[in-house]
Amino acid sequence: MAGNSFGTIFKLTTFGESHGNAIGGIIEGCPAGLTIDFEAIDAEMQRRKPGQSAIVTQRKEEDKVTFLSGIFEGKTTGTPIGFVIDNTNQKSNDYSHIKDVYRPSHADFTYDKKYGIRDYRGGGRSSARETACRVAAGAIAKQLLKDIKITAYVSGVGELQLISDYNHFDFSEIEKNPVRCPDPAMAAKMEAYIKQIRKEGDTVGGQISCVIQNVPVGLGEPVFDKLHAQLGKAMLSINAVKGFEYGSGFAGTRLKGSEHNDLFNLNGTTKTNHSGGVQGGISNGEDIYFTVAFKPVATLMREQETIDAEGNTVTMTGKGRHDPCVVPRAVPIVEAMAALVLADFYLLNKLSKI
Amino acid sequence: MAGNSFGTIFKLTTFGESHGNAIGGIIEGCPAGLTIDFEAIDAEMQRRKPGQSAIVTQRKEEDKVTFLSGIFEGKTTGTPIGFVIDNTNQKSNDYSHIKDVYRPSHADFTYDKKYGIRDYRGGGRSSARETACRVAAGAIAKQLLKDIKITAYVSGVGELQLISDYNHFDFSEIEKNPVRCPDPAMAAKMEAYIKQIRKEGDTVGGQISCVIQNVPVGLGEPVFDKLHAQLGKAMLSINAVKGFEYGSGFAGTRLKGSEHNDLFNLNGTTKTNHSGGVQGGISNGEDIYFTVAFKPVATLMREQETIDAEGNTVTMTGKGRHDPCVVPRAVPIVEAMAALVLADFYLLNKLSKI
Amino acid sequence: MAGNSFGTIFKLTTFGESHGNAIGGIIEGCPAGLTIDFEAIDAEMQRRKPGQSAIVTQRKEEDKVTFLSGIFEGKTTGTPIGFVIDNTNQKSNDYSHIKDVYRPSHADFTYDKKYGIRDYRGGGRSSARETACRVAAGAIAKQLLKDIKITAYVSGVGELQLISDYNHFDFSEIEKNPVRCPDPAMAAKMEAYIKQIRKEGDTVGGQISCVIQNVPVGLGEPVFDKLHAQLGKAMLSINAVKGFEYGSGFAGTRLKGSEHNDLFNLNGTTKTNHSGGVQGGISNGEDIYFTVAFKPVATLMREQETIDAEGNTVTMTGKGRHDPCVVPRAVPIVEAMAALVLADFYLLNKLSKI
Amino acid sequence: MAGNSFGTIFKLTTFGESHGNAIGGIIEGCPAGLTIDFEAIDAEMQRRKPGQSAIVTQRKEEDKVTFLSGIFEGKTTGTPIGFVIDNTNQKSNDYSHIKDVYRPSHADFTYDKKYGIRDYRGGGRSSARETACRVAAGAIAKQLLKDIKITAYVSGVGELQLISDYNHFDFSEIEKNPVRCPDPAMAAKMEAYIKQIRKEGDTVGGQISCVIQNVPVGLGEPVFDKLHAQLGKAMLSINAVKGFEYGSGFAGTRLKGSEHNDLFNLNGTTKTNHSGGVQGGISNGEDIYFTVAFKPVATLMREQETIDAEGNTVTMTGKGRHDPCVVPRAVPIVEAMAALVLADFYLLNKLSKI
Repeated sequence: MAGNSFGTIFKLTTFGESHGNAIGGIIEGCPAGLTIDFEAIDAEMQRRKPGQSAIVTQRKEEDKVTFLSGIFEGKTTGTPIGFVIDNTNQKSNDYSHIKDVYRPSHADFTYDKKYGIRDYRGGGRSSARETACRVAAGAIAKQLLKDIKITAYVSGVGELQLISDYNHFDFSEIEKNPVRCPDPAMAAKMEAYIKQIRKEGDTVGGQISCVIQNVPVGLGEPVFDKLHAQLGKAMLSINAVKGFEYGSGFAGTRLKGSEHNDLFNLNGTTKTNHSGGVQGGISNGEDIYFTVAFKPVATLMREQETIDAEGNTVTMTGKGRHDPCVVPRAVPIVEAMAALVLADFYLLNKLSKI
Repeated sequence: MAGNSFGTIFKLTTFGESHGNAIGGIIEGCPAGLTIDFEAIDAEMQRRKPGQSAIVTQRKEEDKVTFLSGIFEGKTTGTPIGFVIDNTNQKSNDYSHIKDVYRPSHADFTYDKKYGIRDYRGGGRSSARETACRVAAGAIAKQLLKDIKITAYVSGVGELQLISDYNHFDFSEIEKNPVRCPDPAMAAKMEAYIKQIRKEGDTVGGQISCVIQNVPVGLGEPVFDKLHAQLGKAMLSINAVKGFEYGSGFAGTRLKGSEHNDLFNLNGTTKTNHSGGVQGGISNGEDIYFTVAFKPVATLMREQETIDAEGNTVTMTGKGRHDPCVVPRAVPIVEAMAALVLADFYLLNKLSKI
Repeated sequence: MAGNSFGTIFKLTTFGESHGNAIGGIIEGCPAGLTIDFEAIDAEMQRRKPGQSAIVTQRKEEDKVTFLSGIFEGKTTGTPIGFVIDNTNQKSNDYSHIKDVYRPSHADFTYDKKYGIRDYRGGGRSSARETACRVAAGAIAKQLLKDIKITAYVSGVGELQLISDYNHFDFSEIEKNPVRCPDPAMAAKMEAYIKQIRKEGDTVGGQISCVIQNVPVGLGEPVFDKLHAQLGKAMLSINAVKGFEYGSGFAGTRLKGSEHNDLFNLNGTTKTNHSGGVQGGISNGEDIYFTVAFKPVATLMREQETIDAEGNTVTMTGKGRHDPCVVPRAVPIVEAMAALVLADFYLLNKLSKI
Repeated sequence: MAGNSFGTIFKLTTFGESHGNAIGGIIEGCPAGLTIDFEAIDAEMQRRKPGQSAIVTQRKEEDKVTFLSGIFEGKTTGTPIGFVIDNTNQKSNDYSHIKDVYRPSHADFTYDKKYGIRDYRGGGRSSARETACRVAAGAIAKQLLKDIKITAYVSGVGELQLISDYNHFDFSEIEKNPVRCPDPAMAAKMEAYIKQIRKEGDTVGGQISCVIQNVPVGLGEPVFDKLHAQLGKAMLSINAVKGFEYGSGFAGTRLKGSEHNDLFNLNGTTKTNHSGGVQGGISNGEDIYFTVAFKPVATLMREQETIDAEGNTVTMTGKGRHDPCVVPRAVPIVEAMAALVLADFYLLNKLSKI
């Protein structure tokens, strides 16, 4: 638990601050012989990229992944895959005004106290910029997982919440709107709401739901590394996440066992899926589904009172270019982290029996 | 991520099935020189123990922890603390009727498919019996954490939910009722409801809230091992857990940033605590609080249709002695897992700066 | 690197002091479905046991392994295998005379300084008694490895050294003499020498050589976890070990490349095997062979001057029952550690390519 | 044990092939607040660099380390230190002649069999080029260790071996000759011998000795992560290493306990140091010293018969620019690995007692 790595066999270790020269990482444990689809990786990076639509930050980043090792003549070699993503847009002077300021609900204060020093340029290591590395690694994990289909979408923006579950939606609608909501009518409402929030210099929270289909039975390593526990950790490690539920989730706590139990069909599938595709921490072959809660972005484009490192009151206004709502760009991040979890368990499961 | 261990420095590894001779574990990384309060450990074990009240399973287990190493003349020596807890009440023949049966919403099916073999006696490794080891280790972690105070309580049973947050309750009420709810009136309602559910041969879900007070600033290891991510994993690894939220949680997704941001007081504390005591994955010194969702216990004391390993329909009735609602006994488990997380981060944080 | 565990997938974690109630451990990662031969485990324990012959310590220990979990109806279930070995002969009062004394070339001083406290009863955690756990786990690893044959033998006692390499010996001779030397004439000399040394109240060092045959190509995880690096660590972690060499070893440093290179046969085997079965940290299918250096046991049955914890000079005489030469009993320990290394790499190698 | 990482807290993970665009790594766990001396890092890199003298490979590499993160305004920030070293001289076509050839005593065969694919350009991941990353990280570890002094030197080239131990040498002589031998007369002989060997198109093995001074008592994590076991693994993981011994080493196996035991002085130091500064796996404050055996480089500048991937006999002549003897350039690598081991144990030891 050094904090910079995720996974046991298929393992990502990342480095990098938002305003250093580059961020990057090392992917270990990807089996040799996997043909890499570089365009697919780039497509995932584009989904996370700033500036992709009118409702996200207008910061410009290339987010081009340069692979330095581990891939030879288009295939993985079994050796570690090193990669870097240049920070092309690190206008560090953007941040001189916050050098000595602790922004409310940011990590400025905690990093300063923990480490005694802080890279104050735009959040440094605590910036969501590091999630670009997750998306790059997740894109490779997806390719390893082949037939396992991971689909995330925005299911809530502020009070605007999808009521129906994932079975009622056409996933091909998700990428057709900038919010990444599969219900076109709701997507339009969300988009309008985000624009209004932005105009107010404010931000708003939201929710992302994710469905994983075609999962083989057997993934997950009980007791402590149950499939859903590791998924939960993966999601909670994403910036701004405040909660995670899978299957029946919090609503399931109100049910009786006689309502909640998933009865079997004769072929081992289940008639209902309150379990969310996991029993005892191990995938049972049904769809895995979960929801992730994101708080509103803490950087506001309006005045706030706060304190500096000496404990003086200061008034600050967010500068820079920030997202009014984080969930549209977080959709590929949720998918990437889910892919990392599954890729690792997929490999570990090959060792479960002789 | 072998699945049987939790933690990096302060680390628990457990073994044991519900109906083997014993369960047990090894605690590594506890610093030398800690005076162990064995009565305090026993007290925690009593809180988790079956048969402690009329609303929990009437199974009888001593749950006596025998320490085999790592403690000498009452103090930890820095060497691993091995311990065993005998399974005194393993009536294995209780379970002969389920040998070839996959119980609905249990781990029978998934263990069988993953490992090709299953210890069918009462859930084996997937039984919540293993949580006794967590409570034993957590009791030692609590002693290491000294002034950090961890308090969990039942905040929901079915539709019966506490509305007020933890600041409104007198924690000394928690252990005065068998439900472990700090609101005596609500506790009485919950107790009556659980008795009714039991009479119906049914079960019901619930929620546990937990508060951690007097936390030093600086605990948690970003990026992937954020304090709340590890807490979330810890909780989600407990049997029957379906969700985790901290701070403003799912409700926080509906707020605007201007409502959600926690403004600073001049001394570095915050005026509100939507953040739940964590910023950027690192504790900020405010109270940490979170809620854990538990599904209804899957074993019902009534007939259910299910299948056997050959895919035949069979009718089964739960035998044995099971909890109609898991949350009263899960309160010490939630505390124990929180203590394990904090003890590990407490030690790791000593290495954060020179 | 918590210090109590060995391995990544096939992983042993141990606990226990020489004079506590019991020692024991947890074996993780053994695949489900392996039929356990308990007699074979017991036979390995007998090879390490005190009192087995006239040239080893006459201490009496049952060294009976009790398995508590992970094995059901004779087969591994994929869950952790917990086991304990009772300390039946912990005459703790044997050691009251060394309570405040730092014995020369023992770990008394270093444990006291590192931990600020020391279980002074017979070496505590630093006693070679913990190697019993390694032998138990190694016996299971051997069963997993099936056709891979691991053979260790004594190749040196003091100045008495085997000159010929392993190809010249009949391995069936090894267990026919108490020294465990495959050359009967040399074995007799060694035995006589050890008896003489014991009569003098002295001890002597020695060497163990080990050969691993029928190794599949591909075991080992470069860069840092090369097969021979992990074997070296495994051996150096055994009490009293001072050196490790494999293949051509130290003698190979005197050779030229033109003499040392192993030329290929057309089928991929090599004409010579200076490499010791490993290239680039990966097994190449040739025999792996290595030699381990053991220092003389530090406990002498004669007077020595030393100091106590206050820095006073004290005269002490070793009491208790100690080995005059450690290598005969260390043969099964060397094999066990080799088996743990190979079992882990055997499993990891299943994940090297898609 | 993924193979690409070394250490638990102070941890290096590397990536990179000899002929990709770059090699590099991530250093985790370096405490915040350490002022980095970049010139000292560069000086270490120069000691390892090709082309530094007439007796090493004339390949030209800049070996300039570019730090991408984790250092801000000259100090470590506690976040991971990412770095890259460009491969400026990757003449890949140098290696087209070995594309399908398995060079004797190289890793071509084993990589091909293990991974099913091989980056044939100059050894790929198995090239000693990756050790540049170790030297970079080790240079930072040295800065963390401050007063702990690590000194390695060449103690043997072929039959030319230093007889005296390290106490007889003036370490300031080491860097004054290209062999890095502290005995000027022997250094001259070794240099002449290496030149002769090179002229023959041959190579020769050698030995490096290393001394670590001013080590605090208490470093090392028994049982499995004994200080010398981890040092041994560190050294054995370096390319071409065949053996490791510390303290009395292999020669110590010939001694009696009464000769070998290190008696105490009243202040806790010892009169002799056969133990090599380690007791029970923990440093005792005396000098740590050890010797590492290196085989002759396998690439010869003369014809050798070998086989190709189809099993045909082929005749090959080493091209490229290779070291006739690896030890002069391996001196800083040995020091770097020793520094990594000590830095990790130095940090872990801060957690040994309350």
